[in-house]
Amino acid sequence: MSPPYMITSDESLQIPQFSEGYRLRPIELADYKRGALDVLKNLTTVGDISREEFSELVKMWQRNPEIYHTYVIMNPLDKVVAIGSIIIEAKLIHHCGKVGHIEDIAVNSSEQGKRLGLSLIRYLLALGRKNGCYKVILDCDPANEGFYLKCGLSRAGYEMEYRFI
Amino acid sequence: MSPPYMITSDESLQIPQFSEGYRLRPIELADYKRGALDVLKNLTTVGDISREEFSELVKMWQRNPEIYHTYVIMNPLDKVVAIGSIIIEAKLIHHCGKVGHIEDIAVNSSEQGKRLGLSLIRYLLALGRKNGCYKVILDCDPANEGFYLKCGLSRAGYEMEYRFI
Repeated sequence: MSPPYMITSDESLQIPQFSEGYRLRPIELADYKRGALDVLKNLTTVGDISREEFSELVKMWQRNPEIYHTYVIMNPLDKVVAIGSIIIEAKLIHHCGKVGHIEDIAVNSSEQGKRLGLSLIRYLLALGRKNGCYKVILDCDPANEGFYLKCGLSRAGYEMEYRFI
Repeated sequence: MSPPYMITSDESLQIPQFSEGYRLRPIELADYKRGALDVLKNLTTVGDISREEFSELVKMWQRNPEIYHTYVIMNPLDKVVAIGSIIIEAKLIHHCGKVGHIEDIAVNSSEQGKRLGLSLIRYLLALGRKNGCYKVILDCDPANEGFYLKCGLSRAGYEMEYRFI
């Protein structure tokens, strides 16, 4: 698909219907007790984060609504079963253009197969477009490329890293 | 190099001595007239950005010093000859860890061969470490991987994108 096609395409950003009782919303302070951290453990190490540390970070995100957007998918039992973020970066290039960075997408292993990850990615892509981004990018393990191709993304380059720990 | 080595290694984050009269500093509003946009044209399309648009963006960056850090290298004629940014992202994973995103590195074609790009990258890496990042990442064209390997980075994964324009 050429970019002009994608811009006008509702299809590629259509959010699949959720199964009954599932809903997507911005993260809340109370999600600390609703499994927000447990979901992230499906992705990587999270560590022992206190309620205070969680609240401090979520409040900082909420104080910066032009930059940080973290969403969760709740199941019918009001438990966080998926989480993901998009960070909106304001640049000089492309006439003060904006780029969305999708980060830390995680879905509970017990909830796989319900297209929650796909729904979340498509929602974050639509949010990036709504916020005026000319593109949304993310970095992934080559093993996950297939999933992101299904979400409508294409490979753009290499992620390079410098680790301090 | 293993990460533990990198942490204690001054070598890999050592900033090469600049040629006389060259200096690195944070971007300023007055850099609009000192070639800040011309440098970025070495990287990609910039567009016709007014002084007001430039000032508005740089002031927004300055209002968010925990997130945005854009640096320039000035030549002896007080002209911007290199520019680059690091965006510090505060996450939940890795015990409320931080990741630095290096963005929009550009060096004037007329100033190539002076290791300005290398100096800038190493400075931004050191800034990421100083700001508590557990890693710094960037996305690059495969053709530029060699340069970033020289800067001490390693390949981590694929950059995936969704373009709206």
